[in-house]
Amino acid sequence: MTQPSEKALVPFVSVDNMMRLVHHIGIEQILRDLAGYVEDDFKRWELFDKTPRVASHSDVGVIELMPTSDGEAYGFKYVNGHPKNTSEGLQTVTAFGLLADVYTGYPVLLTEMTMLTALRTAATSAMAAKYLAPKGSTTMAMIGNGAQSEFQTLAMKAIIGLKSVRLYDKDTAATAKCARNLEGLGVEVVSCKTPEEAIEGAQILTTCTADKQNATILTDNMVGSGVHINAIGGDCPGKTELAAGILSRSDVFVEYPPQTRIEGEIQQMPEDFSVTELWEVISGQKQGRTGDRQITLFDSVGFAIEDFSALRYIRDRIKGTDYFIELDMLADPDDPRDLFGMLQRAKS
Amino acid sequence: MTQPSEKALVPFVSVDNMMRLVHHIGIEQILRDLAGYVEDDFKRWELFDKTPRVASHSDVGVIELMPTSDGEAYGFKYVNGHPKNTSEGLQTVTAFGLLADVYTGYPVLLTEMTMLTALRTAATSAMAAKYLAPKGSTTMAMIGNGAQSEFQTLAMKAIIGLKSVRLYDKDTAATAKCARNLEGLGVEVVSCKTPEEAIEGAQILTTCTADKQNATILTDNMVGSGVHINAIGGDCPGKTELAAGILSRSDVFVEYPPQTRIEGEIQQMPEDFSVTELWEVISGQKQGRTGDRQITLFDSVGFAIEDFSALRYIRDRIKGTDYFIELDMLADPDDPRDLFGMLQRAKS
Repeated sequence: MTQPSEKALVPFVSVDNMMRLVHHIGIEQILRDLAGYVEDDFKRWELFDKTPRVASHSDVGVIELMPTSDGEAYGFKYVNGHPKNTSEGLQTVTAFGLLADVYTGYPVLLTEMTMLTALRTAATSAMAAKYLAPKGSTTMAMIGNGAQSEFQTLAMKAIIGLKSVRLYDKDTAATAKCARNLEGLGVEVVSCKTPEEAIEGAQILTTCTADKQNATILTDNMVGSGVHINAIGGDCPGKTELAAGILSRSDVFVEYPPQTRIEGEIQQMPEDFSVTELWEVISGQKQGRTGDRQITLFDSVGFAIEDFSALRYIRDRIKGTDYFIELDMLADPDDPRDLFGMLQRAKS
Repeated sequence: MTQPSEKALVPFVSVDNMMRLVHHIGIEQILRDLAGYVEDDFKRWELFDKTPRVASHSDVGVIELMPTSDGEAYGFKYVNGHPKNTSEGLQTVTAFGLLADVYTGYPVLLTEMTMLTALRTAATSAMAAKYLAPKGSTTMAMIGNGAQSEFQTLAMKAIIGLKSVRLYDKDTAATAKCARNLEGLGVEVVSCKTPEEAIEGAQILTTCTADKQNATILTDNMVGSGVHINAIGGDCPGKTELAAGILSRSDVFVEYPPQTRIEGEIQQMPEDFSVTELWEVISGQKQGRTGDRQITLFDSVGFAIEDFSALRYIRDRIKGTDYFIELDMLADPDDPRDLFGMLQRAKS
């Protein structure tokens, strides 16, 4: 066979290589690095092509493509959501992503994104908390102790200096799992029996439960003044975690209003409910936290630009390493008009 | 490392493996097989989700995602179009595709699609000609002798019994390349100096030139009655190959009117210009060729369902072969809530 040219080979990062890369860099360092890439992209938010995600719905789930571009690179994530998968021993969510060069149209990276999405979600939360949480926040209530909980905790430690996390989940096995995983990682872990106990003394309240329907994980009377709420779990139509009263008392920050009004906590509110776009705070155009008694709320649903930042980071970071293999994915005849000749020559 | 489960591994067909597979099956057989899969999907056309393609445009090109689903499988193709690439030694078009299981959301195939698209385009043309060309057609004029020309010729041979092809390209080197590639493959090849010479005695006129702008490859007076025109090259806004007068005298068949009215030959015609959807002919709901003197015209722009058929075929055909490798692309923790534990265990 003829060897394909260098540009016809696409670097691929497998799940195994992604995990090796995380340990090579260190999990707290990769969370800091990712937060930096996300922050940089939020600063140049207006540059990005904000195509709505393309969803294909079925009775049992959804498959989505989330593309975006900054004019130099183009990225998309494939992600599915199938709640019933868990009972069949499969993942609810799997994801992979691709980055391409806008100038040539050639893909430059293919990577697993289940692990990478967990990392970028936590890095984005902590980056937002840096702007929105009370200065010197040291304690977080982590309500919902599923797949995001350890990543959230370590990102808050790495990026804003969190010292203590107070865990609550209605499933005590999830809390035990999270506490065990965080052992020895430099954060004090307190396992709590009620959400009320978890939020005692916490400056940051993170909600990330798996409840499928509109639920009230935090009721209005549970939330006092001067806290930052990091709401991760309300992320699709019909799925919210906060009482509407909390939203009314908070200054709400969102990624992209047209998407968040459909998928986020604010789906409960009127269409003209006032929100601030997080990128406006990060680029210095609007204020984040303005006072000690203010309740700030990051109503996070996850946006394509965060995946784009993560893809950019992985592309940059794997250069010169062996954390990828090269895939012969693009046909590359010597003469572009002679695809058939390339095929015939492969016969011998 | 822990071995990922079987479903977390995605079969990947590289360019090299695709070419090996084509030679293993035989190029005419694979064209027949693909035509069969495309025909089956045209028969159940109404089942399909017909999302418009999602395009990201830049000054120098376009990157598109073309998704579709039949409710059981979901497929998409990534394809770029960068005309300036050729002058930089790169391909104008590269493509890859993915097929997933709608029930689980898990990908089941990743494959190169530059070679596969060339094959499915030719198979679709020949499948359409089976319904639309004069019975017993033996001679085709092939105007434009680029990357599609050999595939078109062999598909017409394999599927409708073509005996002779008459080549014309304004670049005589392209004609020489095509003639050389077709040597010994069982079709009489006649290289012609003018388009007029090429269409002499041909029952099928295939146009597939690389002209970027609205051009008139076939003028009105060149096309007599009783022929089938297979128009491949007019496939994006501002790119057409046929004189409008030919369209007025023809019965025009298209894949999907909303797309073809923007991208196809009929972009020259009024919005209410009458066309027949090819699937209606193939499913027996409408007539194809109705008489000896009729001019039929397949105004083909390429549609996501044809890629879907090709992906289905490759998925089915590689089972039990070694024409693929498996990619560890999907994170698969034993406990879906314990992604972090999976990451930590990978450390050792």
